[in-house]
Amino acid sequence: MLKLNILFGGFMDLFNETLENIEPLYDDKIVLAKKRLDSLAKPIGSLGELEEISWRMAGITGKINNNIKKKNTIIMCADNGVIEEGVSSCPKNLTAVVTENFTKGLSGVCVLSSQAKADITIVDIGVDYDFNNKHVINKKIAYGTKNMKKGPAMTKEEAIKAIEVGIEIVDDLVKKGYNLFGTGEMGIGNTSTSTAVLSVLLDMDSDYLCGKGSGITDEMLENKKNVIKKSIEFNNPDKDDILDVISKVGGFDIAGLCGCFLGAAKNRVPIVIDGLISSVAALCAYRLNKNAREFMFPSHLSMEPGAEYIMKELNMRPFLHMEMRLGEGSGCPLAFNIIESALAVINNMKTFEELKMETDYLIDIR
Amino acid sequence: MLKLNILFGGFMDLFNETLENIEPLYDDKIVLAKKRLDSLAKPIGSLGELEEISWRMAGITGKINNNIKKKNTIIMCADNGVIEEGVSSCPKNLTAVVTENFTKGLSGVCVLSSQAKADITIVDIGVDYDFNNKHVINKKIAYGTKNMKKGPAMTKEEAIKAIEVGIEIVDDLVKKGYNLFGTGEMGIGNTSTSTAVLSVLLDMDSDYLCGKGSGITDEMLENKKNVIKKSIEFNNPDKDDILDVISKVGGFDIAGLCGCFLGAAKNRVPIVIDGLISSVAALCAYRLNKNAREFMFPSHLSMEPGAEYIMKELNMRPFLHMEMRLGEGSGCPLAFNIIESALAVINNMKTFEELKMETDYLIDIR
Repeated sequence: MLKLNILFGGFMDLFNETLENIEPLYDDKIVLAKKRLDSLAKPIGSLGELEEISWRMAGITGKINNNIKKKNTIIMCADNGVIEEGVSSCPKNLTAVVTENFTKGLSGVCVLSSQAKADITIVDIGVDYDFNNKHVINKKIAYGTKNMKKGPAMTKEEAIKAIEVGIEIVDDLVKKGYNLFGTGEMGIGNTSTSTAVLSVLLDMDSDYLCGKGSGITDEMLENKKNVIKKSIEFNNPDKDDILDVISKVGGFDIAGLCGCFLGAAKNRVPIVIDGLISSVAALCAYRLNKNAREFMFPSHLSMEPGAEYIMKELNMRPFLHMEMRLGEGSGCPLAFNIIESALAVINNMKTFEELKMETDYLIDIR
Repeated sequence: MLKLNILFGGFMDLFNETLENIEPLYDDKIVLAKKRLDSLAKPIGSLGELEEISWRMAGITGKINNNIKKKNTIIMCADNGVIEEGVSSCPKNLTAVVTENFTKGLSGVCVLSSQAKADITIVDIGVDYDFNNKHVINKKIAYGTKNMKKGPAMTKEEAIKAIEVGIEIVDDLVKKGYNLFGTGEMGIGNTSTSTAVLSVLLDMDSDYLCGKGSGITDEMLENKKNVIKKSIEFNNPDKDDILDVISKVGGFDIAGLCGCFLGAAKNRVPIVIDGLISSVAALCAYRLNKNAREFMFPSHLSMEPGAEYIMKELNMRPFLHMEMRLGEGSGCPLAFNIIESALAVINNMKTFEELKMETDYLIDIR
């Protein structure tokens, strides 16, 4: 890293510095964790994904036994210019309304987080509204993106800035002791932008990936498909240049969440994927640095058609099949509990050897 | 019920009394719960299965808002005579060893229950060992079943007695304030008995349903398939007579858990299904009284091949896809958290109307 810093004249921006500082998992610790798991008093591998979570946590932190101290779902809120094309049945100002509602603790992700004893962080990364609310962190890049059907949604500089917002938020929360993250969003029109980004990254016809988001008529769905397709055609993003894709057909929320995934990987803390938008951001982070994937955990399989393809691309099997499609990060608190349960397995179960002294007397008695 | 009691001369055994007292869900409360869910500040249906859980709970208890006071996974432990045919690679006395280990709180279901703040109840319903442990409830029907390859595993009277044990245990725990149950088991050889019961109930070739249980070689799997098939052929159980099926090719654990499902339904408390054995018991309960299904919740999709068919037969979609196959009830504590999260949604989320006063000022500002 030092060498690179010198090459760049001693200066490196947060985005590139983060990309350079994402390292692989600690393979030696994974081996030790797997050995421990295989020796526990149960058929080998019989706790399935719970076992994978616990050995992957060892690879992330370098410790065999891990405990979650504090959990936080980061919610990136932003408006999308493309909604003027009629891709959503929700009014645009719902982005601001729901963002404000998060601060009252009564939305879906709020009550689920409260149930999971997890916190939320509400970030205005580009809402078309000036909040006067200390619970909304102002990291506004602009008052929403531009309409991607008519040109790039944002500049490349704005995309980098938005990614850096995500990194900064994670850096901050890690300093405050959080060691498990979730990723959520609020932004009317963001299943359209996410589907556009996904279509480019997977080189797949967007029609196959496009869903009804928060709920639209069949007629509106046809229009949504058309808008996404036209936006991609007009902007012609380079699928191998993630910044080009995000800036042309993405959103500030996607960019910000992409930054969260990169920031979590740099800080070596686990981070949970929620629904479509969060999944697309995870895929962007993975394409920017392959190691970033190792720090991510899935939560549920979203009902949006694109979600399944991303999970395949990331080689992940979502834990939960709950037919959820709310977004907001609502799947994350449910996954937090699963991750904490997995840690209980490796931390608290005993091996047959450890239990032996007390159980020997049972053998061959009958 | 009174009338029936009089008809039977004022006496009715616990088994039949329970079957007579399982009523359908309260449809009117379901309608009210769905109305509430649809009015919450989120796209209609966007919380998927979480919404179904919360309206089904209303149908179970008759209240729109429900809270889980105490949770308990009931673990039925029993030996199976068929293991003398070499269907398992585990030594027979492991049933007793693991049953005793449950009392130390260090097995899989124990650490997961502890994580979920749930209790466990350990029942010796037929282990081939005399426990001297106050934490193991002695409800022993016999020192294990007979070898089903050579004849019926138990008598019909024993099957009824074992079912009644399950009902009694639930009756007792309900009196102690538990209002959410899980179902687990321990019994070397019980994937063989469960697969045999399932094969008869679904009228399906047992070869398709037979899995490797806690782990056996391919050669042992061939033997296991053969033993199951021979046991069914020899006993020729009547698929429409559940007691005949359970007594001929079942086990005390299956019968006991079947009783738990019936008991929970009679008491109108929700009960969670775990893996293969628990699922087979749930199917038996459903066949004995169709209404019993409405009080059951799935947890995870077990890796045993039969599990998927049971879920289809019960028209259930398991919440979790974790590649688990431990049994013990280990999936239940994970599902408890999901159910409690679902209750948080209907209890704590607000409608747009309820949030309106505070958010009106946002509308049309920009």
